[in-house]
Amino acid sequence: MAQPAKNENPIRLWGGRFTGEMDPLMNQYNESLSLDRIFYAQDIKGSIAYARANVKTGILTQEEFEKLEEGLKKVLQEWDEGKFQPAPGDEDQLLSVPLYIHTANERRLGEVIGTNVAGKLHTGRSRNDQIATDMRMWLRDELDLIEEHLVDLLKVIAQRAKQDIDYIMPSYTHLQRAQPIRWSHWLLSYAIAFQSDLERLRFTKKNINKLPLGSGAVAGNAFGIDRMQMAKELGFEGLIMNSMSAVGDRDFVVEMLQCASTIGSHLSRWSEDLIIYSTLEFSYVKLADAYTTGSSLMPQKKNSDSLELLRGKSGRIFGAMTGLMMSIKGIPSTYNKDLQESVQPMLDTVKTLRDGLQIAARLLATATVYPDKMRAALSPDMLATDLAEYLVRKGVPFRETHHLAGKMVALAEDENKGMDELTIEQFQGIDKRFGDDVLSVFDYERSVELKDATGGTSRRAVLEQLEALKKTLGG
Amino acid sequence: MAQPAKNENPIRLWGGRFTGEMDPLMNQYNESLSLDRIFYAQDIKGSIAYARANVKTGILTQEEFEKLEEGLKKVLQEWDEGKFQPAPGDEDQLLSVPLYIHTANERRLGEVIGTNVAGKLHTGRSRNDQIATDMRMWLRDELDLIEEHLVDLLKVIAQRAKQDIDYIMPSYTHLQRAQPIRWSHWLLSYAIAFQSDLERLRFTKKNINKLPLGSGAVAGNAFGIDRMQMAKELGFEGLIMNSMSAVGDRDFVVEMLQCASTIGSHLSRWSEDLIIYSTLEFSYVKLADAYTTGSSLMPQKKNSDSLELLRGKSGRIFGAMTGLMMSIKGIPSTYNKDLQESVQPMLDTVKTLRDGLQIAARLLATATVYPDKMRAALSPDMLATDLAEYLVRKGVPFRETHHLAGKMVALAEDENKGMDELTIEQFQGIDKRFGDDVLSVFDYERSVELKDATGGTSRRAVLEQLEALKKTLGG
Amino acid sequence: MAQPAKNENPIRLWGGRFTGEMDPLMNQYNESLSLDRIFYAQDIKGSIAYARANVKTGILTQEEFEKLEEGLKKVLQEWDEGKFQPAPGDEDQLLSVPLYIHTANERRLGEVIGTNVAGKLHTGRSRNDQIATDMRMWLRDELDLIEEHLVDLLKVIAQRAKQDIDYIMPSYTHLQRAQPIRWSHWLLSYAIAFQSDLERLRFTKKNINKLPLGSGAVAGNAFGIDRMQMAKELGFEGLIMNSMSAVGDRDFVVEMLQCASTIGSHLSRWSEDLIIYSTLEFSYVKLADAYTTGSSLMPQKKNSDSLELLRGKSGRIFGAMTGLMMSIKGIPSTYNKDLQESVQPMLDTVKTLRDGLQIAARLLATATVYPDKMRAALSPDMLATDLAEYLVRKGVPFRETHHLAGKMVALAEDENKGMDELTIEQFQGIDKRFGDDVLSVFDYERSVELKDATGGTSRRAVLEQLEALKKTLGG
Amino acid sequence: MAQPAKNENPIRLWGGRFTGEMDPLMNQYNESLSLDRIFYAQDIKGSIAYARANVKTGILTQEEFEKLEEGLKKVLQEWDEGKFQPAPGDEDQLLSVPLYIHTANERRLGEVIGTNVAGKLHTGRSRNDQIATDMRMWLRDELDLIEEHLVDLLKVIAQRAKQDIDYIMPSYTHLQRAQPIRWSHWLLSYAIAFQSDLERLRFTKKNINKLPLGSGAVAGNAFGIDRMQMAKELGFEGLIMNSMSAVGDRDFVVEMLQCASTIGSHLSRWSEDLIIYSTLEFSYVKLADAYTTGSSLMPQKKNSDSLELLRGKSGRIFGAMTGLMMSIKGIPSTYNKDLQESVQPMLDTVKTLRDGLQIAARLLATATVYPDKMRAALSPDMLATDLAEYLVRKGVPFRETHHLAGKMVALAEDENKGMDELTIEQFQGIDKRFGDDVLSVFDYERSVELKDATGGTSRRAVLEQLEALKKTLGG
Repeated sequence: MAQPAKNENPIRLWGGRFTGEMDPLMNQYNESLSLDRIFYAQDIKGSIAYARANVKTGILTQEEFEKLEEGLKKVLQEWDEGKFQPAPGDEDQLLSVPLYIHTANERRLGEVIGTNVAGKLHTGRSRNDQIATDMRMWLRDELDLIEEHLVDLLKVIAQRAKQDIDYIMPSYTHLQRAQPIRWSHWLLSYAIAFQSDLERLRFTKKNINKLPLGSGAVAGNAFGIDRMQMAKELGFEGLIMNSMSAVGDRDFVVEMLQCASTIGSHLSRWSEDLIIYSTLEFSYVKLADAYTTGSSLMPQKKNSDSLELLRGKSGRIFGAMTGLMMSIKGIPSTYNKDLQESVQPMLDTVKTLRDGLQIAARLLATATVYPDKMRAALSPDMLATDLAEYLVRKGVPFRETHHLAGKMVALAEDENKGMDELTIEQFQGIDKRFGDDVLSVFDYERSVELKDATGGTSRRAVLEQLEALKKTLGG
Repeated sequence: MAQPAKNENPIRLWGGRFTGEMDPLMNQYNESLSLDRIFYAQDIKGSIAYARANVKTGILTQEEFEKLEEGLKKVLQEWDEGKFQPAPGDEDQLLSVPLYIHTANERRLGEVIGTNVAGKLHTGRSRNDQIATDMRMWLRDELDLIEEHLVDLLKVIAQRAKQDIDYIMPSYTHLQRAQPIRWSHWLLSYAIAFQSDLERLRFTKKNINKLPLGSGAVAGNAFGIDRMQMAKELGFEGLIMNSMSAVGDRDFVVEMLQCASTIGSHLSRWSEDLIIYSTLEFSYVKLADAYTTGSSLMPQKKNSDSLELLRGKSGRIFGAMTGLMMSIKGIPSTYNKDLQESVQPMLDTVKTLRDGLQIAARLLATATVYPDKMRAALSPDMLATDLAEYLVRKGVPFRETHHLAGKMVALAEDENKGMDELTIEQFQGIDKRFGDDVLSVFDYERSVELKDATGGTSRRAVLEQLEALKKTLGG
Repeated sequence: MAQPAKNENPIRLWGGRFTGEMDPLMNQYNESLSLDRIFYAQDIKGSIAYARANVKTGILTQEEFEKLEEGLKKVLQEWDEGKFQPAPGDEDQLLSVPLYIHTANERRLGEVIGTNVAGKLHTGRSRNDQIATDMRMWLRDELDLIEEHLVDLLKVIAQRAKQDIDYIMPSYTHLQRAQPIRWSHWLLSYAIAFQSDLERLRFTKKNINKLPLGSGAVAGNAFGIDRMQMAKELGFEGLIMNSMSAVGDRDFVVEMLQCASTIGSHLSRWSEDLIIYSTLEFSYVKLADAYTTGSSLMPQKKNSDSLELLRGKSGRIFGAMTGLMMSIKGIPSTYNKDLQESVQPMLDTVKTLRDGLQIAARLLATATVYPDKMRAALSPDMLATDLAEYLVRKGVPFRETHHLAGKMVALAEDENKGMDELTIEQFQGIDKRFGDDVLSVFDYERSVELKDATGGTSRRAVLEQLEALKKTLGG
Repeated sequence: MAQPAKNENPIRLWGGRFTGEMDPLMNQYNESLSLDRIFYAQDIKGSIAYARANVKTGILTQEEFEKLEEGLKKVLQEWDEGKFQPAPGDEDQLLSVPLYIHTANERRLGEVIGTNVAGKLHTGRSRNDQIATDMRMWLRDELDLIEEHLVDLLKVIAQRAKQDIDYIMPSYTHLQRAQPIRWSHWLLSYAIAFQSDLERLRFTKKNINKLPLGSGAVAGNAFGIDRMQMAKELGFEGLIMNSMSAVGDRDFVVEMLQCASTIGSHLSRWSEDLIIYSTLEFSYVKLADAYTTGSSLMPQKKNSDSLELLRGKSGRIFGAMTGLMMSIKGIPSTYNKDLQESVQPMLDTVKTLRDGLQIAARLLATATVYPDKMRAALSPDMLATDLAEYLVRKGVPFRETHHLAGKMVALAEDENKGMDELTIEQFQGIDKRFGDDVLSVFDYERSVELKDATGGTSRRAVLEQLEALKKTLGG
């Protein structure tokens, strides 16, 4: 045995208060019930499935199981009805472990059905496989709701894209006016992003929806518990096939947070577009009053707070993701207490995302669009590429036509006119191959209709996108 | 005027519920009182200073000011005593803006002293300069407490370093045993890091402690308010010299979060060392019971949860920092609603840091150290460098001595002996320049005492570090 | 027309050097060829497919196409043979745009086949859809190689797990010895993680492998190009269905970087375990010399640099991911120059990951394992749970047996003995229900064999994991 | 001695190639000379100082020192002139360590002056304290250049702010037009940010500029080397007072990267403003041609690539910071190979920052500003606050005036007129307290001049900011 140093405890700073069993600050630092309680239903359902499987292992008689099940359902009801009272001294008296949802539920169960049977529930189980099971069940169910919100957002996009298909506006690259597009084309460009999010969430849910229960603290279950039976009862699609991985893995949270960060990134770019389109200078879009606020100093202001929050909160989600990845970085395998830090970012992100997706859908659904402002922002120089391609159709190599169109842009600028106000002679003065029909180029509808290859701006190509989107939405 | 699209509101999805003024989800999404209320005292003190300065501008009479001051102090008292009741409909009825601490305080003030005088308080002020002032005051005061905790931690380190100065242990590079050091030298290596944190926090506090108030919404104050007077009353060290910067800057939070992340990084490496030293395999250190917990499945376990939480929560702080930096990324200048996302990471980080620093100090103060285990981990091969340097002192070039010492290590390994168990003949068989005194090298005290240059492991050099540390702590 | 300010250019600081067309620093800042050149083959193959499709649109005659194809293949050969010479003035003279791989290739093509035909190549195409195509093709092909490396690593794990199945070691939770496991069980716990990475990479590759080409600069292609034909020729699995999304999306890089960060996280935890297992204090594992280095000062040192680099470079990958997400944050839709910042993190991460996965496989394949050291680290208190479960099998509720086992641990500690050295009487002194066979509990093989539920440590359960792994590896 | 497993090397996968001493991939993975060579001058100067100090310790004679100094200067010259040839087999033959700048320099030194004396140079020194010294010296010197660039940028801001002081434009909050300001006020709002960066960089430089040399590998120097003498010779401001900290700390890089990330964040917001101001819709600013590029497809485009790169590269810097913090996370104290990952982000960030700051200054210096466009964007509703404050000056409480001004905004909107086009009667119809002079409110110069409190928009207040800025710039 090692000989400890004689005067090993220089605790003078706090007068010896913390030598003993208890430092209240530590208990608070370690405490997780305030977050974990959200898993109460999952925890209880998991316990019922665990107990049922332990009839087959011989740990419980059928009668004991029924007693446990009845008791657990009663505790569940107390939670559901807001009547569950966590006891201040709810911790495990044997271990002086802090407060967890598991401990609280089992304590209450003991009060309800007696500790003799309640005390058998935890056989071969550990908080390690239990909390992992709770979290995965909860998250899986929340992802269903997030998917619904994503689908709703996509439906709003689809509805607007169909309804507003006649509106033509400038597209922008580098935030400079580029070529004419349909407003619906802009709307659908984000549908691509959100569709991809939807598919990725569905893939992620599969990874999440694997059962850790039956892995014990780290080495597995010594009573031959039938994990597939529990998986079926609890709606899991498979098992985590290694007990060490089952208790020490929080990558399922990381993966969700990565998805969520990408969704946040999409919402942020989408909001940025709409914020810009809502400026007085652009004036393409105005949000409904419900999604704007005023100024406490400037009576004339209407601010798009909802969009700015969507944009800003993408940072919050990203922070949750990077924070958890940092927490997990380089810790040894299996369970380490560091992993407790996965709960808060998971809960916070799910809420932020659920709220945000709903707000996004509603604000888009209720926004007013100004097609005449969009139209007014179109100008002939945005058809310079069309002009170049006009010559291409007459057989001139593009590199040359690009150059010639550039010259026409410059000429119009010098003349302080729109390109469509130049004369045929002026065109032909630059190049004889400009025909008498050259001015037909300066037609915005013609321009968007010409982009008829898949993914383009023609009515047909936009409706093709809509069809593809509807297929994803399954209806 | 732009002609809006006819059927601009495809709100079918939610049956038209959100066309009007109110979407309850949006209100909740936008709401910040639940966080902002922590600033109640700062908000009220700021209002008193603002009102006092507005006597000089002529906005308020002395009498009106006194009424305002009395009323504000009463509201403050209500908060202090936990009697303040935020009204559910606490928002500004004119603007339908959501609930802020400012609005709540002013509403209550109006009830207390009448809206006629209360309605003058906000003249020339905006929520934008007000919340920036509240946050800076609050954070400045919290940093004082964080500094205290840091100083306490440094004091514990200093106490232990002084008291445990005789204990010799292996140092590690690459987690491989390297050369003997004093345990105090290890302790003080982290003092360097925490001292640097202390200095940086003090620098950061100066940047934070500049007054935004008197900047209006964005363009400044039109009544010639004396901002230096307010700064003095509120304890600020200077003014933010540009009104746009004053309302649109949250870098003061970012800077604090960056400091905090670095402190978190230090706590994480420190915890990692102690976790490793607490393993059965190392056994150098054992935490007091108050800072460990047991296992729900394995009765024999004592886990260093406190250290793992310190290590894990460094991720949480990092996430707060990266998240806010992301939120701020590339938004236009001045106030945008995205900036509201600075409050939550600030509050969360301050709490995490304050708790963590206190726990770190306490667990170190109460830990037991096992000097005989440390001593037992020393082995003669750790003195191979000393052996090389023995020859250096006899004039052999280091590159050669390094090679010769390597040969002695290999010989001892082949012989399955410690180097100190080899004979003089064996040494001289490798190189004649090994003298008869060569075995005097294999003395761990001698080895640590030889490292007497500043920053080294000799008693003198360690006490020199302690002196330097005490100077930082100011007594 | 707006009237510019008279003296708009206060350029005195640099003596008027940068008013004109050229700032060499800007050219360098903007330059991307030094990175883009890696895509040369993809760029040329894409151009050939694009040209072929433009026969059908009527832009090119069959003859012109053949000339182009021949010329492009010649340029490709020059690259392949290291003979391609980027010209210093390689930029587009009309536009003074900087150097891109596209420009360089087209310039050279013009020299080879004449600019008349070469000048037709870019018709209806833009650098925007071209670079997106190049990047996706390149990344898709690299992911195939990364998958191979992952599979190799999994194969090494499987081989070792099979071969070393008899070795029993302590498992750790909180880095404290927990229960006995097979070394193979530890090995396979990471197989779960890497398998999951493999599946996710395959999913990600599908998202990456969609064709942007045929989207023009932003609004689509005006010549009805057959994008599906190009997709088939270039091995893409589908089209990006919206031209704005096609040119403005770099989420395919983000998604890969997120996967890579998770792989990095797995490698980091794996390395951390192995670094700890390689310490003298643990001594379970020793790396082959090829994966360690020595010290320039301490002749006795062998450091596991390879593992530390794997652990450290997980930060590099994470930085690439967070950095790109930051770059993309909140920029407007479609192409903005910010997106150029996606190339460097993509290239750097692919290289870091490819190297790292290969190193990991090789160092594991060549490491020496010390089963007797593992065995020596097992101690009877690690079977306290087995002891509790022994009583469970006799019908005692677990909560009670956990308590009794804890008492036995304490008794053994008091007696300064292993639990297996206590007498039957001492056991029965604590509780009568301990039978005469109680000492049979203290058998490590028995303990690991009892964990026979799926995912556990019994030989059967470990072989079951191996079978599942082999199924993933497809052979 | 531990008994290794019999068949410990299942290397079949690569046919036994990597059992031996060499895996070329590992050498490449570990290699750092390609980055480290940038430190060649610092490394050599550090060696000269180290050698000089070792005359006093007795390790070197004066004559040996002079030989070393001469030799080192010759090697330095070879580097300076580009003649230094790293040898492919440049690694330390005794240690088979990979290629470092240190090794390369010492190898060459040995060739120049003979290994007998050269072999004494490394006595008591380690690569660990050497690389830390090299990096700190290099970074310190680069920070001087970064400071210069920051000062230049601030000077350009000051020059423009002075010269353009007459231009009045809308300020924006939430990207909605708020109140009139001077363009110079916008310019100076960023000066606050960059000034703060400057001060923080100077503070950071102090932390960086502390000497690690003389700390050996981890435990200090055994020959009593005079570290203060070396510090003075090399221009360091102090010593790192603990040898473990000296070799294991890369927080000095982290701190620089945190500063740099904040500078990047400032540049990103600044660029965002300018990108928006450069749109056709705003048209306040146009960049010089040198800082824009054209489109390969659209002849009419001029894109602000320089600003977008500044905005985008802020992500790259942030990624360097987060990546390194991740690499450092939770590693044990002192040197671990993970720390090698600090070099690349340091070099990359310094370059990105140096380029970016220079580009920012130049593009601002050469941009054209359109004051008439700014003026045209002002509208009477932006003076609604002025109107409210007009009534405040007549004694009406602000809360009431805010409401009344809001009514006037609504009335003007209903009438489809500017507020300044309403009649006195219409004003007084809303409230009798509007005087006959009410229309004098609608004067933008008057509005900006009224904001005369410190930090406001009046000419005096702006010049006051300029004065404060000049003081920072020191002349």
